[in-house]
Amino acid sequence: MLSEFSLIDRFFARRATAPSPRHDDEAARPLGIGDDCALIAPPIGHQLAISTDMLVEGRHFFPDVDPYALGHKALAVNLSDIAAMGAAPHAFTLALALPRADEAWLQAFSDGLFALAERHDCALIGGDTTSGPLNICITVFGDVPQGAALRRDAARPGDDIWVSGTLGDARAGLGAIRGEWRAPEGCDWRRALERPEPRVALGIALRGVAHAALDISDGLAGDLMHILKRSGVRAAVDADAVPCSDAVRALPEAARRQCTLAGGDDYELCFTAPVEARAALATIATNVKVPLTRIGTIEPSGAPGIAWRDASGAPLSLTLQGFDHFHAD
Amino acid sequence: MLSEFSLIDRFFARRATAPSPRHDDEAARPLGIGDDCALIAPPIGHQLAISTDMLVEGRHFFPDVDPYALGHKALAVNLSDIAAMGAAPHAFTLALALPRADEAWLQAFSDGLFALAERHDCALIGGDTTSGPLNICITVFGDVPQGAALRRDAARPGDDIWVSGTLGDARAGLGAIRGEWRAPEGCDWRRALERPEPRVALGIALRGVAHAALDISDGLAGDLMHILKRSGVRAAVDADAVPCSDAVRALPEAARRQCTLAGGDDYELCFTAPVEARAALATIATNVKVPLTRIGTIEPSGAPGIAWRDASGAPLSLTLQGFDHFHAD
Repeated sequence: MLSEFSLIDRFFARRATAPSPRHDDEAARPLGIGDDCALIAPPIGHQLAISTDMLVEGRHFFPDVDPYALGHKALAVNLSDIAAMGAAPHAFTLALALPRADEAWLQAFSDGLFALAERHDCALIGGDTTSGPLNICITVFGDVPQGAALRRDAARPGDDIWVSGTLGDARAGLGAIRGEWRAPEGCDWRRALERPEPRVALGIALRGVAHAALDISDGLAGDLMHILKRSGVRAAVDADAVPCSDAVRALPEAARRQCTLAGGDDYELCFTAPVEARAALATIATNVKVPLTRIGTIEPSGAPGIAWRDASGAPLSLTLQGFDHFHAD
Repeated sequence: MLSEFSLIDRFFARRATAPSPRHDDEAARPLGIGDDCALIAPPIGHQLAISTDMLVEGRHFFPDVDPYALGHKALAVNLSDIAAMGAAPHAFTLALALPRADEAWLQAFSDGLFALAERHDCALIGGDTTSGPLNICITVFGDVPQGAALRRDAARPGDDIWVSGTLGDARAGLGAIRGEWRAPEGCDWRRALERPEPRVALGIALRGVAHAALDISDGLAGDLMHILKRSGVRAAVDADAVPCSDAVRALPEAARRQCTLAGGDDYELCFTAPVEARAALATIATNVKVPLTRIGTIEPSGAPGIAWRDASGAPLSLTLQGFDHFHAD
């Protein structure tokens, strides 16, 4: 059995990189793991974007999850929040409760975690390890120029509503695991569920172009409502325009809509932007290699809410259940 | 049963205060709870000190702990890390896994949490709530002028070694609960264990006066070793000079030394300072109303380690067990 300190050192501290210096001032040395606190500062004229997420066994992942995938996902869901603000990831802290110090598990978990962290120049700067039921809590820090963050309260009447990538694969993967439907030959639903890709480059590219933005973690319907409520606006959305993979498209209509409109764990971005930004967004989609799809508009007036339509423009009455940790699934 | 969103709103978001603005720039609006990320920036010329701690039932607190005390302690242990760097607390995030949404429990927990947060002008700026085995993960943010942080690697030969307050009451309280010894009439060991007071004002006052510092969470012997190892120096400590309450002093010698030298959960500060700072430290102790006691010196040379002595100056050979989450207690 490894002691707490050798465990932290072996799997995490040795692989932690020092946060990069952001000021010329010699006194502003950043400080990583090993003291009571880490010390960082955003570049001059920037703010620090901060998000925290806690992942619990049986709720956010299955007990038999591949630990490499879990290390990836635990950081990915946090980086997705940073992306949704248009911030650039810089550092993170990791608090970990483990039922036992299983070296093979820790090796794979830390490999998955650091592979993603290194791709995004995101340094582990602090943490805590304890024994207890498996629980992973990551807090992540990003930089964004003052005033440039993509907030939820900035949607305006007349804006287009956009989503990145495709929606519904993660929920479809969960349904296949649960036996609600069968996954078609060769489809990658499990990868969508376990290896979400945070849209970091897209979020940064949307600074100054998009108005409001968030990441879709709990399902499009519920998450879009956060933008609408905070911006005090109403949306009209074409449910059939919501982009999905061929495998999700092949599901029965009710299942497809449940996956695309209310499925959680997608971590694509949903954002609003003025009509004049369409050409700029086409260029951004090409540059960051992520498809962007226009799915609706912010209406000129009306109370916060979503008017769903189908491809023919006919109104749809949908009963969708979003993801809520304190409701039964 | 409350849903996740109404639960967050009722007990936490409504009581969250917006982080205070730190720049004159209108674009630098800070942002609290309710978006993908919070947005903060330290004042110009400052760094952000960041610490994270995870508390687990059965490991850091008893299942029947008073939830008000738990709310206090969960934030206090984090504020103690901020204090140990000489930083001023500014904001925190809270991630909470709960087995059920018990309203009375949440009311008391949030009351204890916010009572301490408000005393230190520390705003709740973000968080996450999920169902799962009880787990509390707080990440806290403080401001410290560039170059002024009290680091562990700054002890110098000839420094005095100091501790604040008294040590051992929390460990003595744990021993009383476990039946290792009896608590004397009227002693406040349980309070020491459940309601530690982070030494925030002291930490700030020590900027520019102390060299190295940390907070004593795992016991003096183990924590002082962190300073010695990182600073590459050796210490001589008078075990009988380590300050303790009358109730701890009344314990048998071996129990007293276990409590004062290796007892965890005290959250007093241990720091080193040059001999010339003694008068300044006497003034600081008066100003912040926390007693400071000199317990030893940093030796002119030698490998990192502690030479323990008794009041007569005779060498002591001590076998002390520090607190390590992956060892049996």
